[in-house]
Amino acid sequence: MKQISGGVTAAKGYKASCCEANIKYKDRTDMAMVVSEVPCECAGTFTTNVVKAACVQWDQKIVYGGGKLQAVVVNSGIANACTGKEGWDACEATAKAVEANLGIAADTVAVASTGVIGMQLPVEKLVNGVAKMSGTLTDTEEAGTLASKAIMTTDTINKEIAVTFEVNGKTVTRGGMSKGSGMIHPNMCTMLGFLTTDLAIDKALLQEALSAVVKDTFNMITVDGDTSTNDTLLLMANGLAGNEKITGKGQAYDAFVEALSFVCTFLARKMAGDGEGATKLFEAHVVNAKSKEDARTLSRAIVGSNLSKAAIYGCDANFGRFLCAMGYSGAQFDQNDVELFFVSKAGKLQVFDKGTPLAFDEDFARKIMEESEVTVFVDMHEGEESAKAWGCDLTYDYVKINADYRS
Amino acid sequence: MKQISGGVTAAKGYKASCCEANIKYKDRTDMAMVVSEVPCECAGTFTTNVVKAACVQWDQKIVYGGGKLQAVVVNSGIANACTGKEGWDACEATAKAVEANLGIAADTVAVASTGVIGMQLPVEKLVNGVAKMSGTLTDTEEAGTLASKAIMTTDTINKEIAVTFEVNGKTVTRGGMSKGSGMIHPNMCTMLGFLTTDLAIDKALLQEALSAVVKDTFNMITVDGDTSTNDTLLLMANGLAGNEKITGKGQAYDAFVEALSFVCTFLARKMAGDGEGATKLFEAHVVNAKSKEDARTLSRAIVGSNLSKAAIYGCDANFGRFLCAMGYSGAQFDQNDVELFFVSKAGKLQVFDKGTPLAFDEDFARKIMEESEVTVFVDMHEGEESAKAWGCDLTYDYVKINADYRS
Repeated sequence: MKQISGGVTAAKGYKASCCEANIKYKDRTDMAMVVSEVPCECAGTFTTNVVKAACVQWDQKIVYGGGKLQAVVVNSGIANACTGKEGWDACEATAKAVEANLGIAADTVAVASTGVIGMQLPVEKLVNGVAKMSGTLTDTEEAGTLASKAIMTTDTINKEIAVTFEVNGKTVTRGGMSKGSGMIHPNMCTMLGFLTTDLAIDKALLQEALSAVVKDTFNMITVDGDTSTNDTLLLMANGLAGNEKITGKGQAYDAFVEALSFVCTFLARKMAGDGEGATKLFEAHVVNAKSKEDARTLSRAIVGSNLSKAAIYGCDANFGRFLCAMGYSGAQFDQNDVELFFVSKAGKLQVFDKGTPLAFDEDFARKIMEESEVTVFVDMHEGEESAKAWGCDLTYDYVKINADYRS
Repeated sequence: MKQISGGVTAAKGYKASCCEANIKYKDRTDMAMVVSEVPCECAGTFTTNVVKAACVQWDQKIVYGGGKLQAVVVNSGIANACTGKEGWDACEATAKAVEANLGIAADTVAVASTGVIGMQLPVEKLVNGVAKMSGTLTDTEEAGTLASKAIMTTDTINKEIAVTFEVNGKTVTRGGMSKGSGMIHPNMCTMLGFLTTDLAIDKALLQEALSAVVKDTFNMITVDGDTSTNDTLLLMANGLAGNEKITGKGQAYDAFVEALSFVCTFLARKMAGDGEGATKLFEAHVVNAKSKEDARTLSRAIVGSNLSKAAIYGCDANFGRFLCAMGYSGAQFDQNDVELFFVSKAGKLQVFDKGTPLAFDEDFARKIMEESEVTVFVDMHEGEESAKAWGCDLTYDYVKINADYRS
C-alpha cells in the first residue's frame, strides 16, 4: 500500500466540483459534489442519534435498501435536522436536480448536510448550486481538494487522502475526504466522510469492512461528547480498477481492509486534532486490557473527559484526571494494576505505578505535554487487548466558537 | 416544613469547627469537622467511579458495615485518591486523632477529601488540624457557616441550608452543607455533602430515603460530565429531637422525606449554578415522558451537553443542540412528538413544535436567556413522567480554572 497525493478524485472514474451557493456562508464555497462515471456499490455508517437529519434518513434508504450510488451532494451551513417534511423534500429536490442536470437517477444520489440544526434549507439555492456544479465536474486532483474545502464548517484545515494498493495484480486506488469539527463523538463521531475507490467488490463485503474499520477509527474520536444528528460516512466502489471482483474473504479482501483502515485512521486523527478550538491532538493508548471493548471504553473515556482535555491544554500533568475518567467509563478494573505514562516526541514519563503516584520531574512533564501530539499511555496489566482513541484539548476557543455559533 | 437560617449545626446536638491546616491552600480555612453529642444512625451515597478515593472506601466501610457515625472530618485541597495504602493510612490517622482528642471511637469517624487526585495528604498537618478543631467546637450557626466555607475548593459561594418539620408533634430540624464545583456529574455528582438531623429514625429507613431522594436531586446535576473519585453524601441522625423513633413508612416518614428532598434540591441547585466558571443556572424540565427513567435521561442529556452549555453561555437560542442531546441520550422517542420552549423570569417562548422549527423573535429569545436561571422545557407528549436536571453554562473560565488546576 502506498500513500499518493489527492483525495476523492484519485480513483478511476470519479469527478468532483464545488460552488458558492450562499446557503449560510458568504464568499466561500459551501456546496460540493462527487460523481462516479458509473453506478457504484456502496456502504455507509450513520449517526446513532435518535434525532436523525433528513439527509441521513435519505441516505439510509439508499444504502440499506440495497441501492447503488452514483453521486453525492453536500452542503455546509445548514444541517437539515429537525426540519420535518420540508427537510425531506429538500433532499428529494437536490437529488432530482442531479437527475435533471446529469441524467443520474435520483435514487442513486446521496445528500449530506452539516451546520445549524432546526433551520430549513433554501431549496432554490441548492438546486441552482447543483446546476452550477454539474457543469464544472472534473477528475483533477484540484477538484477533489476544492470539494474537501467546500464541506468544511469550523474546520481549520481540509482533510483528504489517497492510497493505492494491489489486488490480484491490479492497482486499486482509494480516496477520501472528511470534515469535523464540533459535535464530534463516537457512534458516529459528528462528521461527514466520503470515500471513493475503483475497486470491484461485493456490496455486502464492502459494508462489512466499513462497519468493522469504523469501530477502531472514526468511532474512536471525540471532540466534545456530542453525537450529532448528521454523521454520515459513505463509501463508493465503482469497480473501474479492473480487478477480479472481490466476492469473499482472503488476501485481496485483507489488502482492501488494510487500505481502508489506513485512510480512515488518517482522516479520524486529522479530525480529532482539528477539533473546534483545539491546539493539539490528544491520544489515549490503552494496552493489556481484559477485552477489546474495555480497551476502547477506557481510551475513549480518557480523551472524552473535559477535565482531561483542559489539563492537556494547560500542559498540566494532572494524571489523576485520566484515572478518574477511566474509573467512571463503565469498565471494571483495579487501580492497583495500572501504570500510566505521558508520551510525546519529547519523551516518555511514568507518573503512576500500580496504585501509587510517582514523584516526577514537572519540567520534563511539561516539555512532553507541550508537543502538538500528546499520548496518555496506560498499561492495564489485565489482559492482551489494546485500543487507541483520539481527541483534542479543551480551549477558550471551543467555548468562543460555540457560544454563538449561529451568528 | 419551614426553612430556617443555619446549616449543619441547626439541629440539636451538633457542633462544628474549622481551621487553617495548610493542606494545599494558604491563608484560608481548609479543614472542617462536624460532631454529634451522641452516636448517630447514618446513611450515605458514594461515587460510582471504579477508582474510589481512600476516604470513600473508609466511609463505605462504616456506613455499609452497619456502624454508627459521630464525627466527620473534611479537608479541601487534596483528594486522597489514587494514593494506595498510604492514602488509607491517612484516613486512619485522622480518625484516630479524633479519638485521641475527643474520646470518640475512631470507627465512628467519617473522613472526606476533595482536591487534587494522585497526591499524598500531609498526615501531620491533618492530625494537627484535628487537634485544633477539637478545641473550638461550638453549636453556633456561625460555626456551621464557617465549616461550609472551609470545604470549598473552586466554589464561589458556600452552600448550606436548614429546615424544621413536625413529626408526631415534635419539631425536627435538618441541616446540611455541600460543596461543588468541578468534576460534577450524576452518580454521585462530584461533591461532598453533609446532612445532619436530630430526628430519631431507623437506619434502614434513613438509607432508603437518602438513596431515593438522591436520584432526583444530587444525581440530576452535572457540571462537566466527570464523575469524581470522591463523591460523598453523608446523613447523620442523632435522635435528639425526642420524636417517637420512625420505624416504618407513614405520615412521619413522608414528612421526613419531604424535608430531605427540599434540602437536597436546594443544595443540588446551588451546586449546579455555582459550577466551575458558571455564569448561570441551566435547568432542563422534561414532562410527559414515557417513563421516569426516560425523563431523567433526557433532562440530564440536555444540561450535560457541552454544545448546549456553550449556547446557554452565549444566550444563543440554538435549540437544535438540545434536541440533538436528547437524541443521543439513549432514550427512544419520535422528534415529531416533541415541543421545546425556553423559559425564564423574562418569559416563555416555544421554538420547536412536533418536528417543525418555529419562526421566533430572536430578541425575545435572547432576553429570556440572559436571565441568571434559564430553563429548557420539553414536552415529550408520550406519557406522564417528568424530571428536572440542573447544570450550568460552559464558559472561558471553566477552561481557565481547569487548564492548570494544580498550581
